[in-house]
Amino acid sequence: MAPHGDKSDAAEEAMVAEAEKRPISTVLIVIAMQTEALPLVNKFNLTEAPDSVFPKGVPWVRYHGFYKDLQINLVWPGKDESLGVDCVGTVPASLVTYASIQALQPDLIINAGTAGGFKDKGACIGDVYLASDVAYHDRRIPIPVFDLYGVGLRQACSTPTLQNELNLKVGKLSTGNSLDMSPHDEASIVANDATVKDMEGAAVAYVADLLKVPAIFVKAVTDIIDGEKPTAEEFLQNLVAVTAALEEGVTKVIDFINGKSLSDL
Amino acid sequence: MAPHGDKSDAAEEAMVAEAEKRPISTVLIVIAMQTEALPLVNKFNLTEAPDSVFPKGVPWVRYHGFYKDLQINLVWPGKDESLGVDCVGTVPASLVTYASIQALQPDLIINAGTAGGFKDKGACIGDVYLASDVAYHDRRIPIPVFDLYGVGLRQACSTPTLQNELNLKVGKLSTGNSLDMSPHDEASIVANDATVKDMEGAAVAYVADLLKVPAIFVKAVTDIIDGEKPTAEEFLQNLVAVTAALEEGVTKVIDFINGKSLSDL
Repeated sequence: MAPHGDKSDAAEEAMVAEAEKRPISTVLIVIAMQTEALPLVNKFNLTEAPDSVFPKGVPWVRYHGFYKDLQINLVWPGKDESLGVDCVGTVPASLVTYASIQALQPDLIINAGTAGGFKDKGACIGDVYLASDVAYHDRRIPIPVFDLYGVGLRQACSTPTLQNELNLKVGKLSTGNSLDMSPHDEASIVANDATVKDMEGAAVAYVADLLKVPAIFVKAVTDIIDGEKPTAEEFLQNLVAVTAALEEGVTKVIDFINGKSLSDL
Repeated sequence: MAPHGDKSDAAEEAMVAEAEKRPISTVLIVIAMQTEALPLVNKFNLTEAPDSVFPKGVPWVRYHGFYKDLQINLVWPGKDESLGVDCVGTVPASLVTYASIQALQPDLIINAGTAGGFKDKGACIGDVYLASDVAYHDRRIPIPVFDLYGVGLRQACSTPTLQNELNLKVGKLSTGNSLDMSPHDEASIVANDATVKDMEGAAVAYVADLLKVPAIFVKAVTDIIDGEKPTAEEFLQNLVAVTAALEEGVTKVIDFINGKSLSDL
């Protein structure tokens, strides 16, 4: 195992407690698609960083700027070099989150994006959800303990005041690398008790947990999974309109966070 | 997009051509499970690096040492902090590959491990395959171009001489985050024309491609997917025995690589 450094657990706990009382200063927003990112880039007057903090050759893009008392970094995994589409899914999201934490040492991560929602759980197109928990629905490993590892359940950073004051819907988020939903995925999503389904959340949660950075998940519903329309069609139809709802939701969250500490959330 | 630096494409191509002619010096072996890693750690007399090149707190483990003219680094994503099982799957593999490339600048990556095999394609328990191509079977995104991105087909580094001289079986590798195989996964595996199925290969290939490091994939068959026995049972039954075949296969590859350049492979 990697060495754990000099500091004792007690000293580390004291540092964490101290950090929770300091005002949040640096926020990292992780977004998978350019269409989801640009309204927020404009809203917060962010500019693309010319001095990349990322290795040469990767398509990852960082926008940054100051908004009120916050230093905001918005990262997006960019476009696939050969195919030209957004690098969606868990692997690019985990890599750009990892590299951004290493370079920027954020106080808080916001994974924002669009998601599918279940109407049986109360979701409607354009709803903005704050995830209480995140888990995977496409990592089935039917060996004891490995099965739990596969699900990878993690709680989002606790934000009871933010939830109450902003009146955002709260639900569980389930993550998988497919836009569609196979019967096996569906069974796992039901087991995860999920209201919203995305393609990155659980991977961002994994990296945030690994590097001990608190993370929250803001997801706007583009398509109703248990509705009549095919997911891909409904997703593309609503993507641009719902990014406006996402921008509004994330702005409310950022405005609320400004000047507060983690323990105020 | 991230800046592409000062060098012209022509100068970069010349550097790559030059690198292909230099003897391979540093090899990075990426392995998902401790049981798969230890026979190779012993074989090459590697020792666990006390000065971690990885961030504090991550469970990733690096073993290193010199074997013949090669500097060998073997990395393994370690055990899940709360559950104690190996961190299998695409996200930990991609993260540890990324961090290792950044820290160690290897000339060649070998992703070694166990895999399921299809008897219809000629696979038997204990066979060691070299993958010609790798792709995903659990990233279904039914939108034009995104569908191809999801499959993420990549060719392994071309090694015609190594293949011929070592007499390893060659086949296509398909990657997904589940140990089992749903009907949807099966359809994608058939579309990928895969002979072997693992849980990391395509993610290692993605990161290697992103950072322009050549990669090969050595996979030993622990279970027959289109056979009679349940995968998890057969996998666990054969895991230890098949890691001996994997150790032998990887040793043959390393012995062959020693003293050679990429263009000799």
